[in-house]
Amino acid sequence: MSVLVVGSVALDSVRTQSEAHDNLLGGSASYASVAASFFGPVRMVGIVGEDFPAAYTDLFASRGIDTAGLQRVRGRTFAWSGEYEANMNNRRTLSVALNVFETFRPDLPESWRDTEFVLLANIAPALQHHVLDQMRRPKFVVADTMDLWIDTTRDDLLRLLGRVDMLILNDGEARQLTGIDSLPRAATALRALGPKWLAIKKGEHGCLLFGDGEFFTAGAYPLEEVKDPTGCGDCFAGGLVGHLAATGNTDASALRQAVVYGSVIASFNAESFSLRRLEALAKSHVDGRFAAFQEFSRF
Amino acid sequence: MSVLVVGSVALDSVRTQSEAHDNLLGGSASYASVAASFFGPVRMVGIVGEDFPAAYTDLFASRGIDTAGLQRVRGRTFAWSGEYEANMNNRRTLSVALNVFETFRPDLPESWRDTEFVLLANIAPALQHHVLDQMRRPKFVVADTMDLWIDTTRDDLLRLLGRVDMLILNDGEARQLTGIDSLPRAATALRALGPKWLAIKKGEHGCLLFGDGEFFTAGAYPLEEVKDPTGCGDCFAGGLVGHLAATGNTDASALRQAVVYGSVIASFNAESFSLRRLEALAKSHVDGRFAAFQEFSRF
Repeated sequence: MSVLVVGSVALDSVRTQSEAHDNLLGGSASYASVAASFFGPVRMVGIVGEDFPAAYTDLFASRGIDTAGLQRVRGRTFAWSGEYEANMNNRRTLSVALNVFETFRPDLPESWRDTEFVLLANIAPALQHHVLDQMRRPKFVVADTMDLWIDTTRDDLLRLLGRVDMLILNDGEARQLTGIDSLPRAATALRALGPKWLAIKKGEHGCLLFGDGEFFTAGAYPLEEVKDPTGCGDCFAGGLVGHLAATGNTDASALRQAVVYGSVIASFNAESFSLRRLEALAKSHVDGRFAAFQEFSRF
Repeated sequence: MSVLVVGSVALDSVRTQSEAHDNLLGGSASYASVAASFFGPVRMVGIVGEDFPAAYTDLFASRGIDTAGLQRVRGRTFAWSGEYEANMNNRRTLSVALNVFETFRPDLPESWRDTEFVLLANIAPALQHHVLDQMRRPKFVVADTMDLWIDTTRDDLLRLLGRVDMLILNDGEARQLTGIDSLPRAATALRALGPKWLAIKKGEHGCLLFGDGEFFTAGAYPLEEVKDPTGCGDCFAGGLVGHLAATGNTDASALRQAVVYGSVIASFNAESFSLRRLEALAKSHVDGRFAAFQEFSRF
């Protein structure tokens, strides 16, 4: 089954302590769509400007991603630049230019409104709402978010929780949104607001999955070197929903495997800048690393 | 088989944001010995002063811990006091009084020198060396350590690594000792200095186990409330060695299970101050939580 992904498409400039790259393909929809494309067809909703390189549209096409929902309008593409500290965990945003994103209204092609699996990748909750307003009875809706929306559009975000099957956020954001320090308690509080499932991402410490009487903990892949963690959260969400859509299953067992598949794609993504690592990846690599996760969790 | 545990025995004063308790049973040998005692006989080596309460010696006895190696001398018992911040991860030491610990020489009863499983719980590396000097061909030696010894007696600690089968430390300490930020790389560097096995503790994020071609990641138990994390690291080490000694096995499969048993005991320990939770615990509780760890790692 297809996955509908809505989010940002960006041109990124990323600096680490050892490298700097400009004009990279970035944005939550880009990462999540490519991540989901390992598992089946993807329908991508987003917006780009006239400066968006044809090579990046070609990349989406080469991954079998349908870009009928990717609007191309006058003006410049959303641009972000950021810098990582030596430990790769702390990131500083250097600049943000919304550009064409400022007027973005994610209107869906009519035939896409029946898509059963929906990933509301990280964008403003109002836009996530707008997409859901157009959907007809989706089977499973996952929303990703970030600290910015908790700070600036908290009410929109809280209202969204009543409309989604799963929320994804990181540990700091779970604490920020609930004001509760204990993650199990924060998870209970967040699930009481709507989502049946909650995934709490912890970066190099893996991921926690909470559901009704369900708890699952996944470690992270032991990467010797992290080249660029940009987009790992988006890849996690994309891989997760991609796997669910591929199996058509949304039971606890499918959710656990989906969390691991999401972690697998995210771990590959950190191995290079932008989407370069995923471009060079075959599904067999993904399945190989999934098996590695099984091996290193076994006892 | 027996486990020999050497470490500190202390009277602790612990403050959290909601509670304060004085004159608690503490110290690395106390926590580690009680943790190991769930799995089989324990031989405890340490030192206390005249003020050490009989109730605490009784507690050791009730757990089947042989205290023939627990010296009682003139003076006051080692005393530590500390305070936790609201998030329970950051701890501030308020005071330390070495007292009788200042002249401690861990001399072993002759009949204990053949003990096959040895836990050098967290004390000065020179004392850990002194114990090993007395041992005759132990089967498996585990050393725990802390940032203090990395700072102050680094050479002693590095020399110790060549004499142990396994080193236990936390993620910050692994980075501090190696100067390497990547934990997989830090693990390789530390194992090159001697220990065949390395366990990196990550508190609420679980634990990593590194060995020759071996990697294992264990999550942490999802505690709703942490009452007092004091001694959790010692309990982890004690439970780990206790399980190894009980099975007599030191292969990869035994090590993985031992890491989980250590995590189980540590998770119980955090549920109350001092050793109160472990006092009230049966082996069936331990095995029940071990099964819970299996359930929440399964996919």
